[in-house]
Amino acid sequence: MIQCLLVNKDKSTTIGDISLLEQWRQDPNTYLWLDIGEHDPQEERALLAELGCHALAITDAQRERHPPKIELFSNYLYLLYRGIYKASPGMIFEHLQISLFIGDRILISRHDKASTAITSMFNENSGRYLKRSPAHLAMRLFHTSCGLYLKELIDFEAELESIEDQFQNHGNDKLMRQITQYRSRLIKLRRTFNYHVNIGKALEAYIDDEDTNIVNEKEVHTINDLNERLDRLLSLSQMYYDICGDLVDGYLSVTSHQLNATMRVLTVITAIFVPLSFLAGLYGMNFDYIPELKAENGYFILLGVMFVIAFGLMALFKKKNWL
Amino acid sequence: MIQCLLVNKDKSTTIGDISLLEQWRQDPNTYLWLDIGEHDPQEERALLAELGCHALAITDAQRERHPPKIELFSNYLYLLYRGIYKASPGMIFEHLQISLFIGDRILISRHDKASTAITSMFNENSGRYLKRSPAHLAMRLFHTSCGLYLKELIDFEAELESIEDQFQNHGNDKLMRQITQYRSRLIKLRRTFNYHVNIGKALEAYIDDEDTNIVNEKEVHTINDLNERLDRLLSLSQMYYDICGDLVDGYLSVTSHQLNATMRVLTVITAIFVPLSFLAGLYGMNFDYIPELKAENGYFILLGVMFVIAFGLMALFKKKNWL
Amino acid sequence: MIQCLLVNKDKSTTIGDISLLEQWRQDPNTYLWLDIGEHDPQEERALLAELGCHALAITDAQRERHPPKIELFSNYLYLLYRGIYKASPGMIFEHLQISLFIGDRILISRHDKASTAITSMFNENSGRYLKRSPAHLAMRLFHTSCGLYLKELIDFEAELESIEDQFQNHGNDKLMRQITQYRSRLIKLRRTFNYHVNIGKALEAYIDDEDTNIVNEKEVHTINDLNERLDRLLSLSQMYYDICGDLVDGYLSVTSHQLNATMRVLTVITAIFVPLSFLAGLYGMNFDYIPELKAENGYFILLGVMFVIAFGLMALFKKKNWL
Amino acid sequence: MIQCLLVNKDKSTTIGDISLLEQWRQDPNTYLWLDIGEHDPQEERALLAELGCHALAITDAQRERHPPKIELFSNYLYLLYRGIYKASPGMIFEHLQISLFIGDRILISRHDKASTAITSMFNENSGRYLKRSPAHLAMRLFHTSCGLYLKELIDFEAELESIEDQFQNHGNDKLMRQITQYRSRLIKLRRTFNYHVNIGKALEAYIDDEDTNIVNEKEVHTINDLNERLDRLLSLSQMYYDICGDLVDGYLSVTSHQLNATMRVLTVITAIFVPLSFLAGLYGMNFDYIPELKAENGYFILLGVMFVIAFGLMALFKKKNWL
Amino acid sequence: MIQCLLVNKDKSTTIGDISLLEQWRQDPNTYLWLDIGEHDPQEERALLAELGCHALAITDAQRERHPPKIELFSNYLYLLYRGIYKASPGMIFEHLQISLFIGDRILISRHDKASTAITSMFNENSGRYLKRSPAHLAMRLFHTSCGLYLKELIDFEAELESIEDQFQNHGNDKLMRQITQYRSRLIKLRRTFNYHVNIGKALEAYIDDEDTNIVNEKEVHTINDLNERLDRLLSLSQMYYDICGDLVDGYLSVTSHQLNATMRVLTVITAIFVPLSFLAGLYGMNFDYIPELKAENGYFILLGVMFVIAFGLMALFKKKNWL
Ligand SMILES: [Mg+2]
Ligand SMILES: [Mg+2]
Ligand SMILES: [Mg+2]
Ligand SMILES: [Mg+2]
Ligand SMILES: [Mg+2]
Ligand SMILES: [Mg+2]
Ligand SMILES: [Mg+2]
Ligand SMILES: [Mg+2]
Ligand SMILES: [Mg+2]
Ligand SMILES: [Mg+2]
Ligand SMILES: [Mg+2]
Ligand SMILES: [Mg+2]
Ligand SMILES: [Mg+2]
Ligand SMILES: [Mg+2]
Ligand SMILES: [Mg+2]
Ligand SMILES: [Mg+2]
Ligand SMILES: [Mg+2]
Ligand SMILES: [Mg+2]
Ligand SMILES: [Mg+2]
Ligand SMILES: [Mg+2]
Ligand SMILES: [Mg+2]
Ligand SMILES: [Mg+2]
Ligand SMILES: [Mg+2]
Ligand SMILES: [Mg+2]
Ligand SMILES: [Mg+2]
Ligand SMILES: [Mg+2]
Ligand SMILES: [Mg+2]
Ligand SMILES: [Mg+2]
Ligand SMILES: [Mg+2]
Ligand SMILES: [Mg+2]
Ligand SMILES: [Mg+2]
Repeated sequence: MIQCLLVNKDKSTTIGDISLLEQWRQDPNTYLWLDIGEHDPQEERALLAELGCHALAITDAQRERHPPKIELFSNYLYLLYRGIYKASPGMIFEHLQISLFIGDRILISRHDKASTAITSMFNENSGRYLKRSPAHLAMRLFHTSCGLYLKELIDFEAELESIEDQFQNHGNDKLMRQITQYRSRLIKLRRTFNYHVNIGKALEAYIDDEDTNIVNEKEVHTINDLNERLDRLLSLSQMYYDICGDLVDGYLSVTSHQLNATMRVLTVITAIFVPLSFLAGLYGMNFDYIPELKAENGYFILLGVMFVIAFGLMALFKKKNWL
Repeated sequence: MIQCLLVNKDKSTTIGDISLLEQWRQDPNTYLWLDIGEHDPQEERALLAELGCHALAITDAQRERHPPKIELFSNYLYLLYRGIYKASPGMIFEHLQISLFIGDRILISRHDKASTAITSMFNENSGRYLKRSPAHLAMRLFHTSCGLYLKELIDFEAELESIEDQFQNHGNDKLMRQITQYRSRLIKLRRTFNYHVNIGKALEAYIDDEDTNIVNEKEVHTINDLNERLDRLLSLSQMYYDICGDLVDGYLSVTSHQLNATMRVLTVITAIFVPLSFLAGLYGMNFDYIPELKAENGYFILLGVMFVIAFGLMALFKKKNWL
Repeated sequence: MIQCLLVNKDKSTTIGDISLLEQWRQDPNTYLWLDIGEHDPQEERALLAELGCHALAITDAQRERHPPKIELFSNYLYLLYRGIYKASPGMIFEHLQISLFIGDRILISRHDKASTAITSMFNENSGRYLKRSPAHLAMRLFHTSCGLYLKELIDFEAELESIEDQFQNHGNDKLMRQITQYRSRLIKLRRTFNYHVNIGKALEAYIDDEDTNIVNEKEVHTINDLNERLDRLLSLSQMYYDICGDLVDGYLSVTSHQLNATMRVLTVITAIFVPLSFLAGLYGMNFDYIPELKAENGYFILLGVMFVIAFGLMALFKKKNWL
Repeated sequence: MIQCLLVNKDKSTTIGDISLLEQWRQDPNTYLWLDIGEHDPQEERALLAELGCHALAITDAQRERHPPKIELFSNYLYLLYRGIYKASPGMIFEHLQISLFIGDRILISRHDKASTAITSMFNENSGRYLKRSPAHLAMRLFHTSCGLYLKELIDFEAELESIEDQFQNHGNDKLMRQITQYRSRLIKLRRTFNYHVNIGKALEAYIDDEDTNIVNEKEVHTINDLNERLDRLLSLSQMYYDICGDLVDGYLSVTSHQLNATMRVLTVITAIFVPLSFLAGLYGMNFDYIPELKAENGYFILLGVMFVIAFGLMALFKKKNWL
Repeated sequence: MIQCLLVNKDKSTTIGDISLLEQWRQDPNTYLWLDIGEHDPQEERALLAELGCHALAITDAQRERHPPKIELFSNYLYLLYRGIYKASPGMIFEHLQISLFIGDRILISRHDKASTAITSMFNENSGRYLKRSPAHLAMRLFHTSCGLYLKELIDFEAELESIEDQFQNHGNDKLMRQITQYRSRLIKLRRTFNYHVNIGKALEAYIDDEDTNIVNEKEVHTINDLNERLDRLLSLSQMYYDICGDLVDGYLSVTSHQLNATMRVLTVITAIFVPLSFLAGLYGMNFDYIPELKAENGYFILLGVMFVIAFGLMALFKKKNWL
């Protein structure tokens, strides 16, 4: 599906289909946003090539999985980032690769499935951004997409705090499993955000780069704003990852301590009753001649001995701080 | 609530309300500190915009949570840092975002709740700082705010040493829980301090930056003093975090060793008494014909055998270093 | 075995043996790809020296193991990388060192065993790449070789996810052993990829290096494409390594928790039955005079006492959250 | 207490009290080392201010705790480092902050308590260093102070090796406690040394710095020698810290293995004797009718069954590698 | 012991004692390698000073332990590295500090004990290297010395792989102890190699350094070859260290799992037999009146009850995945 947004000479904005492309070609004072979603790969390739996109860039755009990147070609600045198609609670993201070809008077966006950020921004309001410069609109789109991650990460902070509390009190396997899953997701996010941060730094460098005028001095605060968001995402994902790791370490220690306490209880019980039971077993034997059994107060003497043993052992354990 | 501090042409200082703004506007030899706290967001926005603050900066200032930052706009150097609203023992901080718009003749401070540092510095004495330059006053404020963190961190060192001592002797779950909480708090502090350090480095770079004269050569020692504090906070938070981690690791090892010792006691007791109890049980059986039971000294022979078994096992365990 | 691929003056491509070398020497408008595989070291050395390769580079090429490198000599840019000879599932690679001597009009490839990437590219199609420049062909070869690693790493991601799932449910020694092996393999891969990334960065630097024209400005996008792949390999190997490490840590915690739960069951059973068994043993003794045994309801009273003890202990454990 | 060391015009050296200051002031060809120890803060402040020291530097010098630093003021290079007041075995240091104000013809040292390094160097020999340049003497002092750390660290290496040996054989809680304490001390030392290394780097940078001539080209080898020592201290403290960490990890593993071995012994003993004891208990019951008890060879048959069970279980454990 | 190797004007090489020094002094077209091993420190100091070596460099050379370094003095480039005196299997090295004073026409090597690398290179062949430049010979020596480390590290890889295999199958305390020792040795090696790598980088920088011509452009490939070896040593020592760490972590997990399995066996056995034994004990009591004992089929009913309990518990454990 291809949709077009044209900013006319008179600054008005028209939304329509591929036919607006011809209008844009004829009038050098117009600006175009060409959005390609779920299109036939062959046709798409032909269209992009005809618009002057580099063959290697088109290949990257159509790859199912490619790390986020930014690269300057002769006509376009090519930006590929990883947006969110669908976010489920617990940091589960279905990713969506979004390619932006940023030209002097044109922005081409390309994606496989519907993008929330693009859908929300594809309207007359964006004409203003596009007119300022296609690069400005591109950065707004990237900023909006990253806002979706940020929302999820901040929601995750609450989740993490609740886990911290639960964990301290009744840590269990289900929580541990969750934390391990979160860590695995955060490590993947961190890698993506690392790529995004590098894109942001490259964008900043293009301002002073004499090879291109696509990104210009006027965009310095917009780029700064974008970079703050990209840095924050990386920094948050790293911090949450570290906190999860510390939770695992702390839990290990708590568990170790509890095990130790449990083992002491077991050892104390065993140590006290096993000798007593042995004595009871001894005098339960059926030998014909066991002199103690004949003693008048044999039973009571044995009970006394047992008391002494039991309390002696308990005193010993108390001294060893086991009780 | 808006309050103003005006340094007059004759170097005297007047404290008052928003009406001082007009005086400042009319006389180019005056300096103004405009402090906005808990104000209506709409009005605030209008006032700041009218004073020439950039729209993006105002948005950042009004956001509930934004990472600390510094950015140069055309009229102002915009500085956003995270101060302390309330500090409770054990590194629990209620944070407060403080925005400073630093101009040539004006310093605008903006915060949601009352700031300890601003309250303590909003008096005639600060007129001197403001006259020197609004940037100087801004750095003094930032320095004072960070002093609150420093005080808490140094208090925490004593707490940490007491934990170290307790931990070594009678480590328990409550201490472990505390350490895990401290680590989580320190990791968040470290991230904040990391942002602050970056702000400090940026401030230093503005001295030689030709784009602005807001921060000038005269402030080099003030900036240095500020940077030492910011570095120290980062360095201390990192060090305390590492020490907490080592405590967790060390505790794990100690616990492991104690568990091992406990288990050996249990094993030794079990290993010695279980065979003896089995023998006693054997001769407690009621079979019609068990020849040993008829033997004259059967009981005493068995006791002898039991002694041999018990001492043999004890010798074995001694040899294995288990006793 | 030596094979040659010659791009003639008329842009046609001829594939043949060493005899094409003479043709290449006589006509400065031709380009040659000379591929040396499994050849006699002495002859190889002589041939390379005669073609102007530096003695140190030839020594490196013939070493059984040498870290990947790139170095500029007077006639050639020498590139040594680690390709794949054979890949078995589970990240087991049999490596193959491939040396490329990149000249102005010639590419010499040298390897001990058959290289998949070279075999697949040694055909007429590559004439086009060679004509563009020997450096372009060299980078295509390197890119293709690295594609083999990438395929294996992406396959490994599926394997890793399946391990993650299994691990959470029924972690066992076999899985642990596998993960430890994977980590050891990934750490070695990471080191190799680190060397490759450094080669990619050096290649990029040669574009602007005045000392050589072997790599020129036209190759900037090809180098970029190569570097993206090299970076991605390093980044993926690092990420998988970290995920494996987190799995180990997480598994330790889960195991610790399960052990704790098991121990509690054991302790509860022991703590409840051991005192009861002791009582039973006590009244199984054969003393002549044990008054309780004569009591009319002695047996039933004892059963009652046992009930009280058992339920009292259970209530205690319930209160301690052990049940 | 204030003491002075004056290098006279004729290169002779005079040691005396504050009165030498006047002599130094009158003759521009003299050099002075002014050492202030345990002095009244107010007087000290006045004296330093009068000598041209910057107010911020005096404040830093008088603070009880300030991170080591170096900063260039108009008249002085101000250097604050952390020396040793008293070293006890086991890396226990009582620190002493030493401030050095380095001028063109004067070196002012300031400390709260007696400094070993200063005491040992405050004699005629140092006149030679002072004459070369106050900066040279300052670096000699710093070098000597750091030598005290180095001596302790090298002594610690022997201690560490002895711990390594003991640990491997009879690891115990006392050793673990010691290691955890060492780690905590090393982490604090590392932080101090990190600051010192940064001071060393700054010193090196002052050579080429046009803003000052206090440190000049002639001192390049002296600074290098100092920097080697500072780097070595940092590197050693980091290495010992890492080795301590690895000891903890290794000990955890050894303990885990021993626990496992202990548990197997316990399990084997329990598993073999518990069923046998159960059988013995079964035939110790007093039911009126238990047919087996009447069987002629009942007892011997049961003994046989017990043998079979015991040896069967032992064979099973042998097969499982538990014995 | 002092030995000399002189390259004469006619390019011939003479090996002899200290008397060759005079010949070298008289003819500016000769080159000298002066090797000082196990000599009297006082005489050595005098000789080196007379040859123009800097006092600080001589002190460093004679110190028993000094970190490896490189430093440019007026007449000499001073290089101090740590070679191998004796290598025992398992990464046990007896180190030997080798000092090289590299001049325009002279190389002075200084060491306490016999150096394998120097012994093997002190012959006519080295005349060629010396004539090219003393710096070239020095780098050849360093390269050869590092080759001894490399050989040991590569041998260690085989050892490490064998440990990996053993560890997975029958990990035990002896292996753990070995790994901990290896880690401690690798951490020390890594530190040494880190210093060596820094020396290599400094050597590279001297090529373009205008302050000296001792290392010149012709040596670029020799330095590169040396740096590859130094980098490789650092990279290998780091990798082996990491692999050892992962082995420890993996072993901990495996041990934890086995302990868990052992504990389950113990718990299952205990849980099944303890209640049965209690019942047997109950009916082994000697109360006058226990009605069950009189019941005709009491014994068989009890056996049935015991079967139900035993199989019920086994079913429960099966359901809990404990069997
Ligand atoms: Mg990353
Ligand atoms: Mg990172
Ligand atoms: Mg960070
Ligand atoms: Mg950050
Ligand atoms: Mg980070
Ligand atoms: Mg951080
Ligand atoms: Mg950081
Ligand atoms: Mg620091
Ligand atoms: Mg630090
Ligand atoms: Mg840090
Ligand atoms: Mg840790
Ligand atoms: Mg650690
Ligand atoms: Mg650890
Ligand atoms: Mg690496
Ligand atoms: Mg890396
Ligand atoms: Mg990356
Ligand atoms: Mg990464
Ligand atoms: Mg990386
Ligand atoms: Mg960990
Ligand atoms: Mg540090
Ligand atoms: Mg450090
Ligand atoms: Mg280092
Ligand atoms: Mg170092
Ligand atoms: Mg280090
Ligand atoms: Mg570790
Ligand atoms: Mg290192
Ligand atoms: Mg390193
Ligand atoms: Mg490397
Ligand atoms: Mg490396
Ligand atoms: Mg490495
Ligand atoms: Mg780990």
